[in-house]
Amino acid sequence: MASDTPENSTNSTSNSAAALTAAQHPAHADGVPVVAVIGDGQLARMMQTEAIELGQSIRLLAGSPDASAAQVCADVIIGDYHVWEDVERAVAGAQAVTFDHEHVPTEFLNKLTEMGYSVQPQPSALLYAQDKLLMRQRLEELGAPVPAYAAIESAEDAEAFFDRVDGAVCLKARRGGYDGHGVWFPKDREDLRALVDELLGKDVPLMAERKVALVRELSAMCARTPSGEVKAWPVLESVQRDGICVEAICPAPGLADDLARAAEKLSVTIASELGVTGALAVELFETVDADGNPEIFVNELAMRPHNTGHWSQDGCETSQFEQHLRAVADMPLGSTRPTAPVTVMVNTLGGDEASDVPISQRFAEVWRRFPSAKIHWYGKDWRPGRKLGHVNLCGYDASPEGIAETRRVANLAAGYIVDGVWADGYTA
Amino acid sequence: MASDTPENSTNSTSNSAAALTAAQHPAHADGVPVVAVIGDGQLARMMQTEAIELGQSIRLLAGSPDASAAQVCADVIIGDYHVWEDVERAVAGAQAVTFDHEHVPTEFLNKLTEMGYSVQPQPSALLYAQDKLLMRQRLEELGAPVPAYAAIESAEDAEAFFDRVDGAVCLKARRGGYDGHGVWFPKDREDLRALVDELLGKDVPLMAERKVALVRELSAMCARTPSGEVKAWPVLESVQRDGICVEAICPAPGLADDLARAAEKLSVTIASELGVTGALAVELFETVDADGNPEIFVNELAMRPHNTGHWSQDGCETSQFEQHLRAVADMPLGSTRPTAPVTVMVNTLGGDEASDVPISQRFAEVWRRFPSAKIHWYGKDWRPGRKLGHVNLCGYDASPEGIAETRRVANLAAGYIVDGVWADGYTA
Repeated sequence: MASDTPENSTNSTSNSAAALTAAQHPAHADGVPVVAVIGDGQLARMMQTEAIELGQSIRLLAGSPDASAAQVCADVIIGDYHVWEDVERAVAGAQAVTFDHEHVPTEFLNKLTEMGYSVQPQPSALLYAQDKLLMRQRLEELGAPVPAYAAIESAEDAEAFFDRVDGAVCLKARRGGYDGHGVWFPKDREDLRALVDELLGKDVPLMAERKVALVRELSAMCARTPSGEVKAWPVLESVQRDGICVEAICPAPGLADDLARAAEKLSVTIASELGVTGALAVELFETVDADGNPEIFVNELAMRPHNTGHWSQDGCETSQFEQHLRAVADMPLGSTRPTAPVTVMVNTLGGDEASDVPISQRFAEVWRRFPSAKIHWYGKDWRPGRKLGHVNLCGYDASPEGIAETRRVANLAAGYIVDGVWADGYTA
Repeated sequence: MASDTPENSTNSTSNSAAALTAAQHPAHADGVPVVAVIGDGQLARMMQTEAIELGQSIRLLAGSPDASAAQVCADVIIGDYHVWEDVERAVAGAQAVTFDHEHVPTEFLNKLTEMGYSVQPQPSALLYAQDKLLMRQRLEELGAPVPAYAAIESAEDAEAFFDRVDGAVCLKARRGGYDGHGVWFPKDREDLRALVDELLGKDVPLMAERKVALVRELSAMCARTPSGEVKAWPVLESVQRDGICVEAICPAPGLADDLARAAEKLSVTIASELGVTGALAVELFETVDADGNPEIFVNELAMRPHNTGHWSQDGCETSQFEQHLRAVADMPLGSTRPTAPVTVMVNTLGGDEASDVPISQRFAEVWRRFPSAKIHWYGKDWRPGRKLGHVNLCGYDASPEGIAETRRVANLAAGYIVDGVWADGYTA
């Protein structure tokens, strides 16, 4: 399908400057890997940021030319990752293929692998990020802590599980969920039964797990190369609202050393045993056991750069995006040493209403008040609840008060970007 | 000239995916500034890195599609900055226009300004970075320390200056020099006379200045917005070889506090008095006065991100590239707080011969040995002496021994990238 690629779109009846541009642009540097990224969101966009400094320029399969990542890449194939021909066009000639989401059909990944492409993470690993039931079964085999769970293939399965966990049921779609989508908390047995009937009727494969009495959520991230090198980042706390990560604090404040080490080790074990390549996020529940001691359970896995790893762009020697690109190209990994005692990341989700204050002016106000606030903006149109950007802030005082102050400032900055209002009533 | 831009290159006789791509790509995000960058080298490339995180996507005027910056930008106009029509096409619709070099004809800059474009730095300031004689005259008016100098319009002027400075003459082309080009050190009176005759015969405008008994070179960098906000980075030491910066150490080791403050203040004064906007590098000579006390002289000015500021990508809360983009868009400036006690930058210049070791393998060896080495690679083809990339390394021990160790590692890493040989004989 070479004749469909932009590189070859020369029109012999035209010799205008524009045709010349389209014919010759994009170019890639010699000797460095061309990584094809399937997906056009902010994760792909931020991969391009790091790719540039590594001498690379990523090849993108994007759904539209104005997608977040498409705005910032030269080599963009417009297409649909559900369409084999588009995927094939996008990966042609790439030294590695990776993703900014888990939704590429497994049969495509297998086919690419059979064709000799270096698909990272490999479909055999990605399976466990795609299917929540298979993931729990595999983690249980590895002895990793997971909440009680069950496959749900009928309303009877659901009721039996309801009884087993005393009604503390969390129902999940096995595939395709993210940011709180595909997760339900039925309020009683009847609600559960009705929900399961409805979802199975729509052919949504289901599982259920025990609802954990949550103290907080943690995230243990690492990256692994095909050759087997693994490097972990410090374990961090992630704050969720309506199933969406809204804040991350690295390292997790007050986390006991042994638990931090256990969580870090868990992420490394999962990466190694499942054969994960690239960045891996292990989302964890922190809870307390019967004796009142803290313990952790695995919630979800993501095999790609992850929202809880954005802090690393400004707070770590190697960001998750650089590490992911190095890992998928099987290059040695970078140092994960933090560059500040604490780094806080706060998401800027689209507000309920579009702000009257122009976005550039919101940035300016934030920077004027907080010169250390690092704004990362994804170039997306506003939509309520949509992830539009994030703010990173490094703190140099790791005391509880110091951490609280860094969180306060990061939240003020991100909040102002959302709606152009200072939550603390500040006026310049 | 809208019909010549890639956005409008749709060919009505074709509806292939490629034509669609060319027609709709590139897109820019709403509400954030589109900055047009004239120049396609590594400085423009590294501006794009930061632009991405700020939600922007720069518009580039590039000489060729495979130029360093053109590889990594979606919105690329192929053209020549000496051709008015190309410049005009490149800036159309941009909220600010800036540069990665000083060589755009002044009449173009004036014309753009008259047309209402926000050209940053403005031609009235850029003049002093373009013309070395005007710069010295202006700095002298401001009371800034400059070595004795003279306009050279004849061999007689040159001989008079030779006598005035006891033969310690450095001859410079007033315009167009960089990286040691356009600078000569005549060995005697006859040599000077012959050189001046030859250069004036070629219509090269000349000036001369006293050759300074150099202790070392320093660089004082700051950035300034059109509204007048200025922020300085710490003063650093720059190591030159054959007129090219090869290494930078920030902050400058052992620099007396009062001299550091004076140098920083000097850069702020120059930025304010000359009306510089964007990043400004004041290259300084450190020498000793008759009493043996250290003193500084201004060597050159650069009104753009500068090689001596690359350390800030990994060692500072706000890199020079982010700061430059914020400044040219008249946004408040970011914190210039260093994130490590010392950061060393070493350039990787093309070796005399192309290395047998593939570049990817050289990266891998460096990362395997030094996981904290941050490689920045420009995507350029090898050529002896060409700036191909640089390595940044943060150090956490600011003692003389600690700084020496950080320099040693950074130089080893950069050296290995040049020729695939460990200078210390290391074998894995």
